[in-house]
Amino acid sequence: MPHNRQIVLDNRPQGEASASNFKLITTDTPALQDGQVLVRHHYLSLDPYMRGRMNESKSYAQPQPLGEVMIGGTVGEVVDSRHPKFKPADSVVGMGGWQEYSVVDANVPGNLRRVDTTHVPLSHYLGAVGMPGVTAWYGLVKIIEPKAGETVTVSAASGAVGSAYGALAKARGCRVVGIAGGKDKCDYVVHELGFDACVDYKEHQDYLSLSKALKAACPNGIDGHFENVGGMVLDAVMLRTNAFARVAVCGMIAGYDGAPLPMANPALILVNRMKVQGFIVSEHMEVWPEALSELGQLVGSGKLRPRESVAQGIESAPEAFLGLLKGKNFGKQLVRI
Amino acid sequence: MPHNRQIVLDNRPQGEASASNFKLITTDTPALQDGQVLVRHHYLSLDPYMRGRMNESKSYAQPQPLGEVMIGGTVGEVVDSRHPKFKPADSVVGMGGWQEYSVVDANVPGNLRRVDTTHVPLSHYLGAVGMPGVTAWYGLVKIIEPKAGETVTVSAASGAVGSAYGALAKARGCRVVGIAGGKDKCDYVVHELGFDACVDYKEHQDYLSLSKALKAACPNGIDGHFENVGGMVLDAVMLRTNAFARVAVCGMIAGYDGAPLPMANPALILVNRMKVQGFIVSEHMEVWPEALSELGQLVGSGKLRPRESVAQGIESAPEAFLGLLKGKNFGKQLVRI
Repeated sequence: MPHNRQIVLDNRPQGEASASNFKLITTDTPALQDGQVLVRHHYLSLDPYMRGRMNESKSYAQPQPLGEVMIGGTVGEVVDSRHPKFKPADSVVGMGGWQEYSVVDANVPGNLRRVDTTHVPLSHYLGAVGMPGVTAWYGLVKIIEPKAGETVTVSAASGAVGSAYGALAKARGCRVVGIAGGKDKCDYVVHELGFDACVDYKEHQDYLSLSKALKAACPNGIDGHFENVGGMVLDAVMLRTNAFARVAVCGMIAGYDGAPLPMANPALILVNRMKVQGFIVSEHMEVWPEALSELGQLVGSGKLRPRESVAQGIESAPEAFLGLLKGKNFGKQLVRI
Repeated sequence: MPHNRQIVLDNRPQGEASASNFKLITTDTPALQDGQVLVRHHYLSLDPYMRGRMNESKSYAQPQPLGEVMIGGTVGEVVDSRHPKFKPADSVVGMGGWQEYSVVDANVPGNLRRVDTTHVPLSHYLGAVGMPGVTAWYGLVKIIEPKAGETVTVSAASGAVGSAYGALAKARGCRVVGIAGGKDKCDYVVHELGFDACVDYKEHQDYLSLSKALKAACPNGIDGHFENVGGMVLDAVMLRTNAFARVAVCGMIAGYDGAPLPMANPALILVNRMKVQGFIVSEHMEVWPEALSELGQLVGSGKLRPRESVAQGIESAPEAFLGLLKGKNFGKQLVRI
């Protein structure tokens, strides 16, 4: 029964989230009951959706309860098991949360999944071959439904979702254009991730200026867009959409702090006969096997080489998470435990 | 070769449209060539989409050329024919424009269609059993795809599109709630069109107030919405949408004058996993036969009794059109010629 350091949500943010919203505590892991598995976490995943859970207000999911361990995806190894399908040293993926160990009821479907690390590094099951990768897959394949030769775009292109999106779209014969913040990220998106172009939104003061840069990068207009950010980026993209463009809305990070975030010109939805559709990947579990299979092949074959930002130690999770919300990470943000 | 009074677009609006944008001229109808039909118009249809055509800027259709007869749907009778399929006294529907007569090349598919006035009055082929009716049908059936028991809403509920939408949605077992301007229109929507409720947007100063009224009228939330207006109405509806709500965007009348018309809270598209989709019914000709068949049956059986506002004489078309843009009409706006 090892000591378990945990990060709990201590209080809810007023406006911007801060480190003082979190608290580090230490508990003992309880003795296992029948059907339970004790997992030692190797990596914790940090994702923008967690910011939404910190609010009290209605969102697409239950708020994170105060005083409980923050929700989060984890990979690790089984250290003790009272479930016949799991044994010590198994590599597993689950939703262990912001802590060093978790006790998992392995009888609940989806709680714990064994994974093969022969061709795919364990940490990638939190990124390209995990929830972010499936998120990119669902938005691209099920909402955008791209045809070869079409131009598709994505915001936060250097991140875990964006990098998977790029590889998936190239595999379908699309022109793929990223939008990211800063020259380093844009260079990475083009030279390492293989996008056809990348536009640096930080070079633009407003959406009209950003839209001009998108016009140069997308000479045939935009047929599909995957939105991770919202605000100015989405406004700029909408001005460049072709007739019958499809927009998959996955994130509205700029609005989580409660600041008003209007859409500048919704009439374009009519003018260009657009489809704008929001989704949450956890509501579409039926696609996960197909998506994970394609993503695993892209990683195994080297066509998708995602970058990771790794913070050290569970105590570093709050600061790493706040950095993620400000775009300070480069690639998938993880905490090594 | 009768004299033909015509309304042409003389100049484009700067901001709000006005009567001075139009000019009445008189010409002689030319002699018929082979395959042509001379139609005397009985009714001209006035529709909000015409405002968009008056602008130079990019819209979903070509701008109305200056100096040419304004575009518009018409019903009338054949007075002379050099086409084997049409003979004098035939009742016909076409796009004859703002004039008393039109010369139609009847060999072009879709230019002229003979209709049966036994059970459906001729003028209704410009409304419930015409383009507006099919517009309602497409948005409801193909984009909203309602299930029995769901709550669906529509703005401009007393108009040609709204009234057809109500009858189509009731036929599918939905709770149908209208949004309209003024007590008279709301009473008509409930008592004559058979909607379950109607909310008067003119009683509300902002979208939050309107949204509260919608909450009372839609106690189970909103599953589908048909948007004819945009702006405050759409913002209010979005606040009341259920998860997986669908919004068919058909009109953004409040934006045609060039005023900025932002969407207040696009993050709701993600939070409620909404689908928001624009469409133009003329791009979906494949559904017209099925839609017109259902609409004709609803009118023939008395389940859909659309109201008409009828202006007299082609010279009244500009003022009647400007009134339509301000919501002064009550039901389908026509000009009797």
